[in-house]
Amino acid sequence: MCGTCNGDAAGAAPPAANSTTGNAAPSASTSNGVHPAQGKPASSPYQFVQDYISNVGRFKIIESTLREGEQFANAFFDLETKIKIAKALDNFGVDYIELTSPVASQASYDDCKAICQLGLKAKILTHVRCNMEDARKAVECGVDGVDLVIGTSSFLREYSHGKSMDMIKSIALEVIAYVKSKGIEVRFSSEDSFRSNLVDILHLYQACDKAGVDRVGVADTVGGATPRMVYDLIRTLRCCVGCDIETHFHDDTGCAVANAHSALEAGATHVDTSVLGIGERNGITPLGALMARMVVTAPDYVKSKYNLKALKSLETLVADAVQVNIPFNNPVTGFCAFTHKAGIHAKAILANPSTYEIIDPHDFGMTRYVSINSRITGWNAVKARIEQLGLGSEFSDDQVKEVTAKIKQMADIRPLAIDDTDSIIRSYHLDLQI
Amino acid sequence: MCGTCNGDAAGAAPPAANSTTGNAAPSASTSNGVHPAQGKPASSPYQFVQDYISNVGRFKIIESTLREGEQFANAFFDLETKIKIAKALDNFGVDYIELTSPVASQASYDDCKAICQLGLKAKILTHVRCNMEDARKAVECGVDGVDLVIGTSSFLREYSHGKSMDMIKSIALEVIAYVKSKGIEVRFSSEDSFRSNLVDILHLYQACDKAGVDRVGVADTVGGATPRMVYDLIRTLRCCVGCDIETHFHDDTGCAVANAHSALEAGATHVDTSVLGIGERNGITPLGALMARMVVTAPDYVKSKYNLKALKSLETLVADAVQVNIPFNNPVTGFCAFTHKAGIHAKAILANPSTYEIIDPHDFGMTRYVSINSRITGWNAVKARIEQLGLGSEFSDDQVKEVTAKIKQMADIRPLAIDDTDSIIRSYHLDLQI
Repeated sequence: MCGTCNGDAAGAAPPAANSTTGNAAPSASTSNGVHPAQGKPASSPYQFVQDYISNVGRFKIIESTLREGEQFANAFFDLETKIKIAKALDNFGVDYIELTSPVASQASYDDCKAICQLGLKAKILTHVRCNMEDARKAVECGVDGVDLVIGTSSFLREYSHGKSMDMIKSIALEVIAYVKSKGIEVRFSSEDSFRSNLVDILHLYQACDKAGVDRVGVADTVGGATPRMVYDLIRTLRCCVGCDIETHFHDDTGCAVANAHSALEAGATHVDTSVLGIGERNGITPLGALMARMVVTAPDYVKSKYNLKALKSLETLVADAVQVNIPFNNPVTGFCAFTHKAGIHAKAILANPSTYEIIDPHDFGMTRYVSINSRITGWNAVKARIEQLGLGSEFSDDQVKEVTAKIKQMADIRPLAIDDTDSIIRSYHLDLQI
Repeated sequence: MCGTCNGDAAGAAPPAANSTTGNAAPSASTSNGVHPAQGKPASSPYQFVQDYISNVGRFKIIESTLREGEQFANAFFDLETKIKIAKALDNFGVDYIELTSPVASQASYDDCKAICQLGLKAKILTHVRCNMEDARKAVECGVDGVDLVIGTSSFLREYSHGKSMDMIKSIALEVIAYVKSKGIEVRFSSEDSFRSNLVDILHLYQACDKAGVDRVGVADTVGGATPRMVYDLIRTLRCCVGCDIETHFHDDTGCAVANAHSALEAGATHVDTSVLGIGERNGITPLGALMARMVVTAPDYVKSKYNLKALKSLETLVADAVQVNIPFNNPVTGFCAFTHKAGIHAKAILANPSTYEIIDPHDFGMTRYVSINSRITGWNAVKARIEQLGLGSEFSDDQVKEVTAKIKQMADIRPLAIDDTDSIIRSYHLDLQI
């Protein structure tokens, strides 16, 4: 069964009457240092310390659903679908949209040209192998920038292209010079950067930087990097080049969002994403999860720059196009991302949503739901429901506790829907009046 | 539609004939320093440096599907289901199984007792509020240990229990002394630790440590922590207490796996998990994703200790019990976690799987699949398929390239299944013979 479409009460759309609004809650920031309204606890007990190398408050997104995402097992995008996705990404506010190499097939070539002509606000990039033939095809399509890539790990040099680091450097400089001569942006990225020799790739990136590349790219192609590996490599690289630093993280070991955050802290400027993370194998840093992370770290920047309320429809568009469900545990848009169930949580969340929410659901056009249908329900949540039913004045606290015990007793026996719980409350209320 | 059950060819079960075995591949470790077989590239170009504070190679798992997981919106576990899950977790090799507080309801109390009597290898814990009444109930049930928890952030102190830090400390010491007097393990955890005052919680943890607590617990209750915040807090705490350090990370901002890894690097000893991460809101560190992370970081420890091949059936058991799909992008067990599609990847993966795989799918009883049905297919992958069809000797490389062009041309028009691709190859082969 699908977690997003089953008939289970707890999974169903939250009843509006049971939502509390979080507008009065302090912004749940942990690093912007802004103090919330007087009389509320500060969002962090710590002093804000400026970290000058960090770009968490000024990063850019290179959205690769139409390139990395096309490498997802289920992806088959015709031009109409590509245009819909490109327009939705543009509406969301991504800085760049990256497309499949025009060398891949005739349709890839034609579609790349067509998308370049849409006149979107986002810049259009295409991702090609680092050679003159591919670069020429890319330029022909009218893109705003060319993303060059070549494998630099011993694995890829031995089993993929067979080139030495000297050969890679000499090809890279030739292709960079060509793309620059056409007056468009150029990025040079290594592939499998975290299993490449550090000295080799620093040497290569520095040469590209001197040749005037706009960005160098660091890629965790196999998804094996950890946040500390990322921080160390990017921070070292930040000291070696003056150009921008783009980062690309696969999610094989579940660290793609955290790695992107660490990269920005260490001075990276750009993060590659795809909608729902779709890509080779289990994909890359998902756009939505990255927004969840960054709206906590840098709320003002993220809320003012990106159209967060469009996230859900963007994810639905892409999920439908590749025939997958939005994962039940997806940050922000998973069906229960803002559902509170445990009794000891519900009391506090009703008093102040920031107690158990680091993200305000309203920022993403979502709503909160406090469940009162289980054996772990607490009486404070039941009291709030009784008030919503207009019966608040007729129950003492002891009576609320008694009816809560009845709800828990029933919930021990079978799953309850909100109607069941309401019936227990109303039946208890009737008994009170007899 | 469900990504795990649709009829799309790329999403269907990989044809066995198209899998390559990874047995000959070097272990894709990045940190254990073991060099793979002669003649293969090393898994990392870096020297292994021992980090003495790190516990990545000796951590323990506190599995909380039957406690945190019961706080998941869809969860309703009867005793039969709880026993099935507990036995499956025990078979997987987790160190501890944590159960819902026996104070929550009568069934919670009875079920806790019943699970304690199963005679599992894993130790049984229950998670209760830090007060004498709850602790007594827990001890009554026959658990191996009691996990005490109380909120220490200004948020929770103001909106939840209203206690001062001095009151918290005095209650904690009393309850710890009581549980210890019963000869069973005791943990003291703060809740919302990353929004608690650092000096306050260090003071509290140190007092608990002196009182002989077995573990102190650090919890990112709202899911807002980042790997660097985690590393800093745990490393500081590691210098202040001698007891074990347990960690608990919610996944609201997509960092729960990386945060657990950072915690272990900084000296934490225990990680809380649940199967598929089920828990309050979008849940906590998923057991499977943590295994994916740790098998890369500490392959020998993880492979020798945990029954990795049982992961898929364990996840399926829990997914069925709470009526969700395994997310399409789940590490290891997502339907395409080992599917390779891009042409430039396929060539290398066929020559050596470690080029694009940090995890050997066979360690988890899974298989790899190289897709050859898309516009981004490369001729090396098609050549491998032609060889599997027994036609290898009848195609020159130029002919393979020609038939690859035909496949890409067709894939530009519509999604292809493996049968379609095979038909194109066979039809081309027939033409060759005329």
